[in-house]
Amino acid sequence: MLYGGIEAGGTKFICAVADENKKILDKIQLPTLEPEITLSKVIEYFRKFKLKSLGIGCFGPIDINPASKTFGFITNTPKLPWRNYPIVNKLKATLNLPIGFNTDVNAAALAEACLGGAKGLDSCLYITVGTGIGAGAIVHGKILQGLCHPEMGHILIRRHEMDNYKGKCPYHQDCLEGLASGPAIEERWGEKGVNLGSNEGVWELESFYLAQAIVQYILILSPKKIILGGGVMRQKQIYPLIRMNVLKILNNYLSVPEIIEQIDQYIIPPGLGENSGIIGAILLGELAYKNKSF
Amino acid sequence: MLYGGIEAGGTKFICAVADENKKILDKIQLPTLEPEITLSKVIEYFRKFKLKSLGIGCFGPIDINPASKTFGFITNTPKLPWRNYPIVNKLKATLNLPIGFNTDVNAAALAEACLGGAKGLDSCLYITVGTGIGAGAIVHGKILQGLCHPEMGHILIRRHEMDNYKGKCPYHQDCLEGLASGPAIEERWGEKGVNLGSNEGVWELESFYLAQAIVQYILILSPKKIILGGGVMRQKQIYPLIRMNVLKILNNYLSVPEIIEQIDQYIIPPGLGENSGIIGAILLGELAYKNKSF
Ligand SMILES: Nc1ncnc2c1ncn2[C@@H]1O[C@H](COP(=O)(O)OP(=O)(O)O)[C@@H](O)[C@H]1O
Ligand SMILES: Nc1ncnc2c1ncn2[C@@H]1O[C@H](COP(=O)(O)OP(=O)(O)O)[C@@H](O)[C@H]1O
Ligand SMILES: [Zn+2]
Ligand SMILES: [Zn+2]
Repeated sequence: MLYGGIEAGGTKFICAVADENKKILDKIQLPTLEPEITLSKVIEYFRKFKLKSLGIGCFGPIDINPASKTFGFITNTPKLPWRNYPIVNKLKATLNLPIGFNTDVNAAALAEACLGGAKGLDSCLYITVGTGIGAGAIVHGKILQGLCHPEMGHILIRRHEMDNYKGKCPYHQDCLEGLASGPAIEERWGEKGVNLGSNEGVWELESFYLAQAIVQYILILSPKKIILGGGVMRQKQIYPLIRMNVLKILNNYLSVPEIIEQIDQYIIPPGLGENSGIIGAILLGELAYKNKSF
Repeated sequence: MLYGGIEAGGTKFICAVADENKKILDKIQLPTLEPEITLSKVIEYFRKFKLKSLGIGCFGPIDINPASKTFGFITNTPKLPWRNYPIVNKLKATLNLPIGFNTDVNAAALAEACLGGAKGLDSCLYITVGTGIGAGAIVHGKILQGLCHPEMGHILIRRHEMDNYKGKCPYHQDCLEGLASGPAIEERWGEKGVNLGSNEGVWELESFYLAQAIVQYILILSPKKIILGGGVMRQKQIYPLIRMNVLKILNNYLSVPEIIEQIDQYIIPPGLGENSGIIGAILLGELAYKNKSF
């Protein structure tokens, strides 16, 4: 039994095939070009396998409301060739498979809850800190879904009094993503994050912002586990800084032992390493095959 | 078939009895004194009825985790006589009824989703702006529950640049509750909110803060309906100010028609008026009787 998955990102598409144990048997990476070009390669790849289904964890914003006329579309992304693009219909028309479709971060949260750092829990939050900042949540055992998918990366946080950087979000300027994404770090410090590892001030400021956001997520959602991934989180020294700042901001307000006593196990890196997204996509496909909602 | 409910607040306890249609047949109000004094009156009241169950929508923080040793306790409230008080056990021991127990705001959210302004929806957020600020949410048709109940009133928001008031939260000073609760309004302006109706600056500032919080809730939870109640919201002129500020902060980021085109029906007063809390308590009791989780 083979399941396909796509981690559809703004710079690259990862396509993979897994068995029923979610063991990845084959994987390729394609650059994100014009939709027709990229998708023709995607289709060519998946045609080589006898798949039961396909799952897509997609960059957003996307329409995941099955009742909507534009279900399965990438909607108002700044990547213009992909704006209002019916990615699900296009793949369904040629591959003729059940297709699971959700955001990249929701897929990753699902994978972490099923097989990763939040295994066995009916609740977790997956946050990515990369080119953008986004998060997906599992609540009561299902992907959190309301009016639309969450957009947690764009919350407003308080600026650090020493930070004069204007912010990089085209919609809100200095929202969380505007102040703390990879490109924001690069523009503020004039250097890519990967080359700033030894500059402590960079990561103190970064953790100041991420901790504020995480406190909002805790107070509003109360997730049972918080998983932080994405390119920027390769700077492993940020984890302890974030944990410390979270406790400081909460100021003993929540007397929950999981947070107060065991924060090292509460705010963690992905249990599936860099594979949360693609495994999540495969799980979305499996759920579509089994005709289950997530 | 009669169900009992208690809306247990920091200043008053409302006790009511309803039929299976949740029609309130009888209701009393008691001051919140020492636990033993107040509860003996509560018990005396409910003993007069042949109830199937009792539900409690309680001020917090409380322990609602059935697996916990302190399940059914009011935990670290600043109201000292009630701190670590086993309210559920005390009532169960004397009344011997199935007891539903949750936060006051979760009860109100449940009532609004079942019978009020969010009727028919599987998702809503109920926010109270009163002596404190708190919120409860329905997600996927159930009361949102993770590691603990949410504490949405204590999120950090950005100060208005003209506001020098220090804030009233004993834990965080100038969190949302610290800046925008009824007592914060009173201390900042030197006058009770009820007497400030004609002072436009008061409500502009209030809506500036509440809108910021609501935007966080939308981006993180994406509720299908937002219901605003509590004493401060008796100032009806705040609703349009809040709606306007929410749209301004979102800055067209979410292209959801329910928000962009119909915000008047998205952010609304309670459909059940001042009865959301007590009807919610009765619903909690009914769920306990039917042995359903919420
Ligand atoms: N080791 C690193 N340290 C700090 N920042 C990094 C590191 N590696 C990548 N980044 C930053 O992370 C961002 C890319 O995030 P990533 O999660 O890899 O991709 P994407 O978000 O596009 O899917 C870039 O802004 C990059 O500068
Ligand atoms: N009409 C009003 N206008 C403004 N503020 C009010 C009004 N009525 C009550 N309040 C304020 O609301 C708070 C009480 O909120 P309420 O929801 O009635 O009770 P509680 O939160 O204690 O359950 C007080 O701070 C009070 O000053
Ligand atoms: Zn933004
Ligand atoms: Zn606070």
